[in-house]
Amino acid sequence: MTAPHERLRARLGDPALYLDDPADTAPYGRDWIGKYEGAVPLVVRPRSTAEVSAVLAACTELDVPVVPQAGNTGMVGGSVPRAGEVVLSVERMGVIEAFDEASATVRVQAGVVLEALQGFLAERGCDMPVDLGARGSCRIGGMIATNAGGIKVLRYGHMREQVRGLEVVLADGTVVEGLNILRKNNTGLDLKQVFIGSEGTLGVITRAVLQAQPAPQAFQTALAGLASRALLPPLLQAARARFPRLSSLEFVDGATVAYVREADPELRIPLAGEHGSYVVIEEECAAGEAAGEAFAAGLESLLEDGLIEDAVIAGSEAQARAIWRVREAPTETVSRRGLTHKFDVTVPPGVIPAFLGEMETLADGFPGVRAVLFGHLGDGNVHVNMAQEPGLADADFRAMEADLADAIYGAVHGHQGSISAEHGIGVMKRAYLPLARSPEEIALMRTLKAALDPKGILNPGVILGP
Amino acid sequence: MTAPHERLRARLGDPALYLDDPADTAPYGRDWIGKYEGAVPLVVRPRSTAEVSAVLAACTELDVPVVPQAGNTGMVGGSVPRAGEVVLSVERMGVIEAFDEASATVRVQAGVVLEALQGFLAERGCDMPVDLGARGSCRIGGMIATNAGGIKVLRYGHMREQVRGLEVVLADGTVVEGLNILRKNNTGLDLKQVFIGSEGTLGVITRAVLQAQPAPQAFQTALAGLASRALLPPLLQAARARFPRLSSLEFVDGATVAYVREADPELRIPLAGEHGSYVVIEEECAAGEAAGEAFAAGLESLLEDGLIEDAVIAGSEAQARAIWRVREAPTETVSRRGLTHKFDVTVPPGVIPAFLGEMETLADGFPGVRAVLFGHLGDGNVHVNMAQEPGLADADFRAMEADLADAIYGAVHGHQGSISAEHGIGVMKRAYLPLARSPEEIALMRTLKAALDPKGILNPGVILGP
Repeated sequence: MTAPHERLRARLGDPALYLDDPADTAPYGRDWIGKYEGAVPLVVRPRSTAEVSAVLAACTELDVPVVPQAGNTGMVGGSVPRAGEVVLSVERMGVIEAFDEASATVRVQAGVVLEALQGFLAERGCDMPVDLGARGSCRIGGMIATNAGGIKVLRYGHMREQVRGLEVVLADGTVVEGLNILRKNNTGLDLKQVFIGSEGTLGVITRAVLQAQPAPQAFQTALAGLASRALLPPLLQAARARFPRLSSLEFVDGATVAYVREADPELRIPLAGEHGSYVVIEEECAAGEAAGEAFAAGLESLLEDGLIEDAVIAGSEAQARAIWRVREAPTETVSRRGLTHKFDVTVPPGVIPAFLGEMETLADGFPGVRAVLFGHLGDGNVHVNMAQEPGLADADFRAMEADLADAIYGAVHGHQGSISAEHGIGVMKRAYLPLARSPEEIALMRTLKAALDPKGILNPGVILGP
Repeated sequence: MTAPHERLRARLGDPALYLDDPADTAPYGRDWIGKYEGAVPLVVRPRSTAEVSAVLAACTELDVPVVPQAGNTGMVGGSVPRAGEVVLSVERMGVIEAFDEASATVRVQAGVVLEALQGFLAERGCDMPVDLGARGSCRIGGMIATNAGGIKVLRYGHMREQVRGLEVVLADGTVVEGLNILRKNNTGLDLKQVFIGSEGTLGVITRAVLQAQPAPQAFQTALAGLASRALLPPLLQAARARFPRLSSLEFVDGATVAYVREADPELRIPLAGEHGSYVVIEEECAAGEAAGEAFAAGLESLLEDGLIEDAVIAGSEAQARAIWRVREAPTETVSRRGLTHKFDVTVPPGVIPAFLGEMETLADGFPGVRAVLFGHLGDGNVHVNMAQEPGLADADFRAMEADLADAIYGAVHGHQGSISAEHGIGVMKRAYLPLARSPEEIALMRTLKAALDPKGILNPGVILGP
């Protein structure tokens, strides 16, 4: 019996549709962080929805497992083959098809790169409010399939909230076209919701209609120091009420700031003294608007209420950048100093102080490991960085990953948090899925998977495991 | 063989769980507009998730069809029996269970009345941003099951956007508990999305965690006159960019305002002259904020760009109410003058002017019928009211409904609009579902229905028809 990829190649016929030279296919088998790698016998590269449909119909008929791939910038190993699956890449579906001015919606193929879409929209006075570090290579289809978040979730939500219409090809090749541009459309089941965030396990996203937003014209940015991390939850509550257009509310733990300062004496913290916690507060506003007074009054009231000890407002773009450096520097510091195990988790905002304390205590139990802690206060998303200290061998540090993951995900579970805030489950976290979801939820996921992909050809092993 | 409801009653045992006296059950069989009515042999009224689970497990085992019912305030006949089904009412599940201050989330049972929740949140400085006319009787479970919209969709979205966690009981009695409070939680399929807006056909919602918002402290309100309805789409575009906290953007057609003025000479339009179209613009702002200047500057720029002819800003709450009267008066006028066929549709905002013209022309073809046109410009939701004029007999007017619906939904379909913006499909619009959704979409809805409710006991006939 021939191998699955050989059956598919024979059926496809036209060599313009695929790559099969190992030199060409190898890059599709490695994720960008170099953590996941698999053999890739065949990469199919359709140029249209009709071609995706024909490929999937053949895969179902011939029992060929497929890994859908867009920008391949995921963090959890969900877009590279594990067992010689065929890769279905949407990279040649890169057309921005239409822009509707009145509704500010844009229709794109799944292979459009985020940065290209951002440029297209900027020329029209608009913006795509989901923005990520990987903007130069991540593609819209993958962002929808993983329900990407990013730095503006607090104000605009995830990809799910930006998707107005979606076209999906099912495992059997059926094209389900729901490319409407409407904000209000309660006509039966909202099918697109089933596929958003399904990590390529229920269908292949081929096109989408996305809601753009007016490009923000100006920002108000401040850095505030808190006496203690215990004040983070009441600060969040107060900020939500006092800054109606809050676009960012980020925190960095006091011990993390001290660590970064020590490691990088050049870093200027634009706030005197030492504080238990630091918070970056940013609001969007209209150009030329007299927004500064209201923003300053909001900070003043936080001071009066004893929620913050001190604050500085950026008076220029350079000062705003210096404030944001405080939030971004820890990531750079840990990567410069050694290896890091990174955990992207959410806990209810009210338990952030307790959780941060637990992470410190936990790191104390792993000699040579330091907890570097920061994240998005606005939505409870904590980036737990367990960083290698000088003196601990790389191999020893690497060997700690599973124990760290067990302990951290266990603590998250204890707080009814999420073991994956933004990155999804992929293959990396599937062993921990029972910590995040109940047996009934997992059974229901299997029911949906069986109904939509009865042969299990789509991204096998992702989310639910083998 | 005994009737299904008799099998269920025998199984339930405890009479405290149900009503079966026709005098008690009859009200559960009528919708509030008096359009749909069906016989109700048995009303089951569980008090807990466990009781809902036991009831549904028995219904699946005994082949008993069930109509889930919350506030019974729907517009499309989806919550009353059609063929002697048992009603499962959540009216005794009215507990507001928990409020989490830091995340501003509230956990409720499905039978909580919206107004009760609004009162609870107001005491905590918060607000539920989905608000409806039926607030005194609609219940949260029904609002989620129908993905209710209301008057703030432009700024806050539908119920879907407010739901953080959901507990659902499947047809076989399985309790799927996903009551998390987290904003960011990408841990596998987002199962709640499957049930939101499914109109009780896939499961019974028993509890939910909802995101509250800070209560708005003040508003800026204006009424503007446009030379022509053709200016509505560019006005929408400009308003989106110039009013960053736009909470309402409502339009009333010029001919509709003239008609209401004639019918109600007491109505004071707080704007001189006659205009082709009228728009109410409202922004939320913080108390004491110097927001008035920015708001006035925004209106000024609309005038300079020729998008509006004239505008008036409310200087007091009384003036704001007078402005809102212009938007609300047409509804009252049509109901005072006679019968009305109401159609809740969405078209892409860019085609609103053309669509309004088509609705006028269409009404001309039905002697004795007048088109009364207004709606939510911000999301393309047009309320098409086809109103009875004096001289046309009630019976003749009633007989026109199907022809009007065919013509209006046909026009909506031609513009790739939605035949149900907010109200859902229920039984009223199921014959028109093929105008809204493709055969592949409808087939996929049937696949999901078969996977989740294989015996078809849940709200049979709703959305997909028999």
